[in-house]
Amino acid sequence: MNTFGFRLRLTTFGESHGVAIGGVLDGFPAGFAINEEALRLALERRRPGQGRLVTARREADEVRFLSGLYQGRTLGTPLAFVIENKDQRSHDYSALSSLYRPGHADYTYQMKYGHRDPRGGGRASARETAVRVVAGALCAQWLAARGVEILGYLSRVGTVALEEGDWSEVVPRSLTALRGRYDHIVPCPLAEVAGAMATEVETARSAGDSVGGVISCRVLGLPVGLGEPLYDKLSARLGSAMLSINAVKGFELGDGFAMASQRGSAVRDEYTAVAGRVKLCSNHAGGVLGGISTGAPLCFRVAFKPTSSISLPQQTVTEEGLEAELRITGRHDPCVALRAVPIVEAMTALVLMDFYLVREGEARTNE
Amino acid sequence: MNTFGFRLRLTTFGESHGVAIGGVLDGFPAGFAINEEALRLALERRRPGQGRLVTARREADEVRFLSGLYQGRTLGTPLAFVIENKDQRSHDYSALSSLYRPGHADYTYQMKYGHRDPRGGGRASARETAVRVVAGALCAQWLAARGVEILGYLSRVGTVALEEGDWSEVVPRSLTALRGRYDHIVPCPLAEVAGAMATEVETARSAGDSVGGVISCRVLGLPVGLGEPLYDKLSARLGSAMLSINAVKGFELGDGFAMASQRGSAVRDEYTAVAGRVKLCSNHAGGVLGGISTGAPLCFRVAFKPTSSISLPQQTVTEEGLEAELRITGRHDPCVALRAVPIVEAMTALVLMDFYLVREGEARTNE
Amino acid sequence: MNTFGFRLRLTTFGESHGVAIGGVLDGFPAGFAINEEALRLALERRRPGQGRLVTARREADEVRFLSGLYQGRTLGTPLAFVIENKDQRSHDYSALSSLYRPGHADYTYQMKYGHRDPRGGGRASARETAVRVVAGALCAQWLAARGVEILGYLSRVGTVALEEGDWSEVVPRSLTALRGRYDHIVPCPLAEVAGAMATEVETARSAGDSVGGVISCRVLGLPVGLGEPLYDKLSARLGSAMLSINAVKGFELGDGFAMASQRGSAVRDEYTAVAGRVKLCSNHAGGVLGGISTGAPLCFRVAFKPTSSISLPQQTVTEEGLEAELRITGRHDPCVALRAVPIVEAMTALVLMDFYLVREGEARTNE
Amino acid sequence: MNTFGFRLRLTTFGESHGVAIGGVLDGFPAGFAINEEALRLALERRRPGQGRLVTARREADEVRFLSGLYQGRTLGTPLAFVIENKDQRSHDYSALSSLYRPGHADYTYQMKYGHRDPRGGGRASARETAVRVVAGALCAQWLAARGVEILGYLSRVGTVALEEGDWSEVVPRSLTALRGRYDHIVPCPLAEVAGAMATEVETARSAGDSVGGVISCRVLGLPVGLGEPLYDKLSARLGSAMLSINAVKGFELGDGFAMASQRGSAVRDEYTAVAGRVKLCSNHAGGVLGGISTGAPLCFRVAFKPTSSISLPQQTVTEEGLEAELRITGRHDPCVALRAVPIVEAMTALVLMDFYLVREGEARTNE
Repeated sequence: MNTFGFRLRLTTFGESHGVAIGGVLDGFPAGFAINEEALRLALERRRPGQGRLVTARREADEVRFLSGLYQGRTLGTPLAFVIENKDQRSHDYSALSSLYRPGHADYTYQMKYGHRDPRGGGRASARETAVRVVAGALCAQWLAARGVEILGYLSRVGTVALEEGDWSEVVPRSLTALRGRYDHIVPCPLAEVAGAMATEVETARSAGDSVGGVISCRVLGLPVGLGEPLYDKLSARLGSAMLSINAVKGFELGDGFAMASQRGSAVRDEYTAVAGRVKLCSNHAGGVLGGISTGAPLCFRVAFKPTSSISLPQQTVTEEGLEAELRITGRHDPCVALRAVPIVEAMTALVLMDFYLVREGEARTNE
Repeated sequence: MNTFGFRLRLTTFGESHGVAIGGVLDGFPAGFAINEEALRLALERRRPGQGRLVTARREADEVRFLSGLYQGRTLGTPLAFVIENKDQRSHDYSALSSLYRPGHADYTYQMKYGHRDPRGGGRASARETAVRVVAGALCAQWLAARGVEILGYLSRVGTVALEEGDWSEVVPRSLTALRGRYDHIVPCPLAEVAGAMATEVETARSAGDSVGGVISCRVLGLPVGLGEPLYDKLSARLGSAMLSINAVKGFELGDGFAMASQRGSAVRDEYTAVAGRVKLCSNHAGGVLGGISTGAPLCFRVAFKPTSSISLPQQTVTEEGLEAELRITGRHDPCVALRAVPIVEAMTALVLMDFYLVREGEARTNE
Repeated sequence: MNTFGFRLRLTTFGESHGVAIGGVLDGFPAGFAINEEALRLALERRRPGQGRLVTARREADEVRFLSGLYQGRTLGTPLAFVIENKDQRSHDYSALSSLYRPGHADYTYQMKYGHRDPRGGGRASARETAVRVVAGALCAQWLAARGVEILGYLSRVGTVALEEGDWSEVVPRSLTALRGRYDHIVPCPLAEVAGAMATEVETARSAGDSVGGVISCRVLGLPVGLGEPLYDKLSARLGSAMLSINAVKGFELGDGFAMASQRGSAVRDEYTAVAGRVKLCSNHAGGVLGGISTGAPLCFRVAFKPTSSISLPQQTVTEEGLEAELRITGRHDPCVALRAVPIVEAMTALVLMDFYLVREGEARTNE
Repeated sequence: MNTFGFRLRLTTFGESHGVAIGGVLDGFPAGFAINEEALRLALERRRPGQGRLVTARREADEVRFLSGLYQGRTLGTPLAFVIENKDQRSHDYSALSSLYRPGHADYTYQMKYGHRDPRGGGRASARETAVRVVAGALCAQWLAARGVEILGYLSRVGTVALEEGDWSEVVPRSLTALRGRYDHIVPCPLAEVAGAMATEVETARSAGDSVGGVISCRVLGLPVGLGEPLYDKLSARLGSAMLSINAVKGFELGDGFAMASQRGSAVRDEYTAVAGRVKLCSNHAGGVLGGISTGAPLCFRVAFKPTSSISLPQQTVTEEGLEAELRITGRHDPCVALRAVPIVEAMTALVLMDFYLVREGEARTNE
């Protein structure tokens, strides 16, 4: 149950305050030269401690590959990697160990497993997502070599929303801005909106509070034909991947929930022929029809709840069943969505590369 | 890729205009007495031809079990069942066979498989969902015997929305109304809203158009501890199950996308102790924390796009790559969400029973 | 647990005395034209009632495809098929229903499931293997189009053994005889040995007894590179497939158990170069090294125990725990191995086609 | 493809001369206190360098757990562990890197992956089995707490065979000797036979040669009901597990291949009633009927080919397709079976614990 994917499978392990976290990526084809610098950069983008907006806890996040590589190229065998937990002290958490933190998995884990590592969130910690970023970055490199570009960005932080333009555009107008998203204070394509988002976060933090957010993602360069028709629709797999990220509460594809209020004539994507090839006139569907990619950009949105760890006092209960007041004093990200853009990108890359490999194995037989 | 589930696996087959559709439900425990009448009722609720609001095509939908039952009780062996396609004539579709219908999977299937059954939607047809309803109804019976109740309902049709009250309530106030949802013209808990929804659909149909909708679902009686922490979170599996239904474009759990605009202090679910047992004071999270059920009601929403088959003329392209105008003359549901409530309930039952069985296999070991 | 395979998955269902048996073959590529006559022939070879040597019970074994085909070619969607049980009467078995037949699964099924279909063997019946033969015949056709030939044959029946010659031959000397195996009274390449085997079976039957046997199999035309290195070695998958057949008690590859008594220098397969290409000088390994096919013929043997249903009286116990004497009066095959040759071939075809499809999905990445 | 098991999954990684080898064991229940000393002992038994009979290469084989444990008890989260490769130098192998060693996977890996770690066997190295032993030892401890005892032993080395007595005994007569197997020079229950086996190995080594062997295994204390009826029979899973071990060429259950020459009356296992409970009078079947455990001891045999690395010169081909003579000078085990007893035991434990967990999830439903 700690494995993700079909042909390409990521198995992960590690508690937030254990010896190490890590993963085994199995099914990656042999012979691919990996770019370690790009990998480091992806991890850096997820890392806490980058500025005043995110938690001050510094994690080194140095990835060490244990297998699957020889002379910088993949062997086709499992790519195993670990990130050691440099600072395993857990003094910040000791006071909390017998309290169930609202919004966290403490209570559900205790009920499910009976025996629980009370230091931090264990497997439920956001620290686990570093492993996803490593694996996803490898996939993103493989996809990039096939012309696929994955562009995640913040489209909302609390009350500050980015005007995304028309989801139904087949080619996004603001591609240059999109590509520059990581140059701003938060990963949003427009500098001024990024600034407003940062202020929104800072205001919440000052009040001992937190805010939610939305991450949007567009994927360019996909071929027609990725995804399976029924239970493993591209949309279903993507949705599952996103909803497997901590704090995610919603997923929509293309015009999503807005389509529910619309008429069919307003959100249909008609076809046209360009030089004998089929093209979509619009992209309300977000790049998927019948569970299979259409060749238009993949467009989806992911909703994140506000960080559950806030400084304001909270009412809770101890493991012994007594009521208590919880006061969290450590520093925590006031907006989990800020750091989650590379995680959304990573999970997208895992899903897409998996479907690429599935597709190779189902080549048509014409005879 | 036509299989859904882990411990409890539903494998389905059948093209919309083939000989039959059906499924194999594997992993269902032995010794359970099934209620055939309840099964028939669930299918009836999904069936087209029930009234003026839905398509006039009549499908008999008689389920025939081929295996897995002896003297009315399950054997623990695969439950195989078929629904024969009584009317395999496909004259309604013959004119369309070389045109890619906008919003349908015709184009993506053709690109993926090369060889395609042009009569109707093949596997992409909504007809396939009858199989899900059969399997889901069996699971719902098994869950009901454990006190679990699954209540799906229409909360939006086009511009007509049901005021759902506070998602964060731990016990829904309107349980009686909820249970009576299928007594109305469309499955909505309030008769007057149901009437307005029906009018909305009728108006769209008269204009040769269609409308979208939202189905909400609440599950009562779940224990704490269902779901897996990482990639198979209860929320991720549910989302995947919903996004695997035809025409679904969005999924949200609890307050969902609305949480993205909120502060943490506004949407936290604090704990209290009632007779030494932990209780949630509210349920913004929708019944899941860290991917695991909290014991509070499971609450989620599913967005459906408007039916893609509309009478208004549409621009498209032939298989040969020539532009053409498409005029669909057959009768089609102007709002797919109307019939999808039992499908949402069925997929929910499949996911939940699967996690029940998974949980049995992971009983703690204390020694 | 009723599913076999990875990329190509066969899910089966049906009790021996239920309504029907059948299967769903998922993952078969689109566009393949199937040969129904060859399919019928494979089934005929497995069918009881072919002569005096096998059981007189006549099963019609008419296959009806429910999905996955259009105009004789595969759609890439699940191939579902059923074989109706024409004669569901179970009078022959009624007397046995409360006795545990020695050597059968009655007792273990009762203990495992609690609720059991007492008519015949339920899922444990050899009747289930008809489904494997259908699916395997489709795979064999697909493999034949790629030059792969699967040749199963009886190499032992009780005390009568076929002199197989040297397993280590890279090309079998007696290919013509091998291909004619089904022309004899039992499927053995040499007519005189086939005759002796038939006599052995008849003698056992006359004594109210049964005999065991060995089926050997050679697969020609395989490429290098099928199979996975560790837990899904070609040898492990093949062994698992064979051991999943009723009455199988042993599996060996190449020289098999005989190698345990040998020295390395006697059973090594050295390499030579023929026109710059690597060739094996011998084939003691049976076509697999490190779990991966070498390009030499795949050679393996499968041991079948004697039929458990014999006319001689047997001591047993009732479901209520009382001792009793069992006298089986119905007619049963005195040697299950006789009919099992097409089953061995079918399971081989399923394993090999699966690995072909897996291999397509792991094409190397060189950049 | 580097994962073994269903409910309990072992995913492994690591090349023989890479940074480390290791595994992730997922699905192990929470709350189990592990015995590190027993774990160390199991590894020690597999380790090379124990005496004159096995290779002199010393591997430290220190296991380091990275996750899944807290205060010595399992957390229910993945148990990840690594064994660092202390000595990564590969000078011994450098001369071989362009030659395909007969009997090894060099050639098949090169054909399959294109890019290969030429230092040692990569994933095909016997070193990988240390990971299996670690995981298997954990399972064996869990099984031992349920009264299950797994007893593997050498029953043949080259021409020296142990007289095993009657496989069909329900309780082995020589249980004390069996339990003392590891006290002898090689793990065989009888000291004098162990001595003869050691001499056989030494003689082969002196001649620059190697020998094969057979490992037998008996499992005591199993309940009735483990295993799945069709494709995941206990026998099929066990066979697959054994055939996934390096150098294994055969597997047989109970009387195995010998049954093929027998009559049914000679090898049937009749039932008797003891205090109202069903008992088997004999155990020719080896503890499995219809794929499901009978409660009698599980009895099986595994055939190992002679070590492929021998000192005698061998004819082979280079990667470039040129003929060459190979002279292996490093020290290698002349009989792989000697060290494989704990590996057979480990794989048995993995299979059995997996089926225990599967069984918990399929508890009957009686209502």
